[in-house]
Amino acid sequence: MDRLTIVKVGGKVVEEPELLDRLLDAFTTITGYKILVHGGGKAATDLAARLGVETKMVDGRRITDLETLEIVTMVYGGLINKRVVAGLQARNCNALGLTGADLDLVRARKRAVTDIDYGYAGDVENVNSRELRIILGENVIPVVAPLTHDGKGMMLNTNADTIASRLAIELSHFYKVLLFYCFEKRGVLSDPLDDDSVLGELTEPQFLEYQEAGIISSGMIPKLYNGFKAIHNGVSEVLITNPDNFYKGRGTRLVRS
Amino acid sequence: MDRLTIVKVGGKVVEEPELLDRLLDAFTTITGYKILVHGGGKAATDLAARLGVETKMVDGRRITDLETLEIVTMVYGGLINKRVVAGLQARNCNALGLTGADLDLVRARKRAVTDIDYGYAGDVENVNSRELRIILGENVIPVVAPLTHDGKGMMLNTNADTIASRLAIELSHFYKVLLFYCFEKRGVLSDPLDDDSVLGELTEPQFLEYQEAGIISSGMIPKLYNGFKAIHNGVSEVLITNPDNFYKGRGTRLVRS
Repeated sequence: MDRLTIVKVGGKVVEEPELLDRLLDAFTTITGYKILVHGGGKAATDLAARLGVETKMVDGRRITDLETLEIVTMVYGGLINKRVVAGLQARNCNALGLTGADLDLVRARKRAVTDIDYGYAGDVENVNSRELRIILGENVIPVVAPLTHDGKGMMLNTNADTIASRLAIELSHFYKVLLFYCFEKRGVLSDPLDDDSVLGELTEPQFLEYQEAGIISSGMIPKLYNGFKAIHNGVSEVLITNPDNFYKGRGTRLVRS
Repeated sequence: MDRLTIVKVGGKVVEEPELLDRLLDAFTTITGYKILVHGGGKAATDLAARLGVETKMVDGRRITDLETLEIVTMVYGGLINKRVVAGLQARNCNALGLTGADLDLVRARKRAVTDIDYGYAGDVENVNSRELRIILGENVIPVVAPLTHDGKGMMLNTNADTIASRLAIELSHFYKVLLFYCFEKRGVLSDPLDDDSVLGELTEPQFLEYQEAGIISSGMIPKLYNGFKAIHNGVSEVLITNPDNFYKGRGTRLVRS
C-alpha cells in the first residue's frame, strides 16, 4: 500500500503568515501522497467581530447561525483555504482546495437540537473518496477546509479534527495512512504548565485518566478523541505534534490499547 | 471531439437565491461536459461596505487593494462558489469549486501600474487544463471563481468574463466548446431601453460600431470583447443570453467576421 500523510493544522499556525510559511516549507518535504486539513476559527471570530456578529461557543464548539455559516464559509473556504493553496503552488506543489461539498467529499447531517442548538453544525455521515483518490494519483495535494454539506444545498460547519480523522479512516482502505495533528505545542503535555513535559506515547485509557484529572486542555480533547478513533479504525499512525516537528515524526504518538 | 459547454453567470443571477435556483435547474439539463464560471461583484461590494472598506471602480473594474483582495477571496472563493457547488450537489451534479490557484488552473500577472493602479488585479498569463480535463472525464462539473494566482503565493482578482473566455480558448484544443455569457437581459440589445430589441447575431465590426455609438452598455463590453476573442481563437459558439434562455441556445450569437 502507498503511504498517505494527512496533516491537520489549526489555530495560529494557518492564521499567522510566518508560521504558515514554516509549516508549508516543512509540509513540502513529506514524501508520498499527502493531504492538508486546516482550521481557521480565530480568523472567523475576528471577521464576525468586525461584522458585529456575536460569536457563541459551547464546549469549544461554535454555535453556527445562518450569518455565522456565511462567515465560516468565507473564511475557511475562501480566505484561509486559498492562502494555503496559493502558498503551496508557490512551492511547486499542485494543491487543490476542497470543502466537503466539492466532489461530494464529506456529507453531513445538521446536528439535532438537544439542550443546545448548534445551528448549522454538521455531523459527518459519509466520506466519498473516489475522485479524491484519482487526483491524489495525479500528485495533486488536496487542501481541505472544515466545511461539509447536507446534500440538499446547505453548507455545514464541521470540526476540522473530525474531518481529518474521518478522511484518514476512509482512506486507510486504500493507503497506509499517517495522521498528524499539528498545533502550537510539541505534543500532549503531562503538565499543562510545562512545555517540556511532552508524552512520548499515549493510550486511550491513559487519555481518559488524564482527562478525568483535568490535565488535558479542552482544545486537545477533539484531537485525542478523533485520533483514537482513527488509530482503532485502520489508520497506521496518529501523532500530536507541531509545525517544527511533525515532518520529523516527533510528538505524542497515540498507541492502540 | 466531445462537446463542452462553459456557462458564465454573473451579477444578480448568482447572488439572488431564486434566480440561482432557476439557473442551476437549467444548467443541469445541459448534456455533455460542462463548466460554470461565476462572478459575485455585488456581494463583494456589499461585504466591503459592511466592513467599512470603500469600493473603487474604474471603467467597471475593481481597484483591488490588499483588504479588497481578502474580501473578494472570501466572497468569490468561499461564499458564492460554495453556494453554487452545494446547489449543484443537491441536484446530483458532482461539482468541484476552483479558483485559478487550485490545480494551478489560471496563472496571472499583477497588472502593471500605469495612470491607474488596479492593485491586486491579475492579467491572465497561462491556463493549465491538464487536471481539469481528467476531472471532466470523471463527469465532475468545475465551478470556477474569478480569482487567479501569481505563482508566488499571491491570489489576484481577475474578471470572470475573461476567465471564461480564456478557459474556452484553451479547452477548444480538446473539446468542441460552446461559451454562454449569461446575464439579466435576453441578449445584446440594439436599443438599450427596449428589452425586446435583442440582436440575433453580432459581428465584431458591428460591435465596434455599436460601441462607438454608445449603444452597448459598459457591463456588456467585457463579455463582447472576450466573446469575440474566443470565437476567433477556436471556440465553436459564443452566445450572450440569460438564465431562462441559455440552455435553449437562444440569445445573441457572436459571428466570425
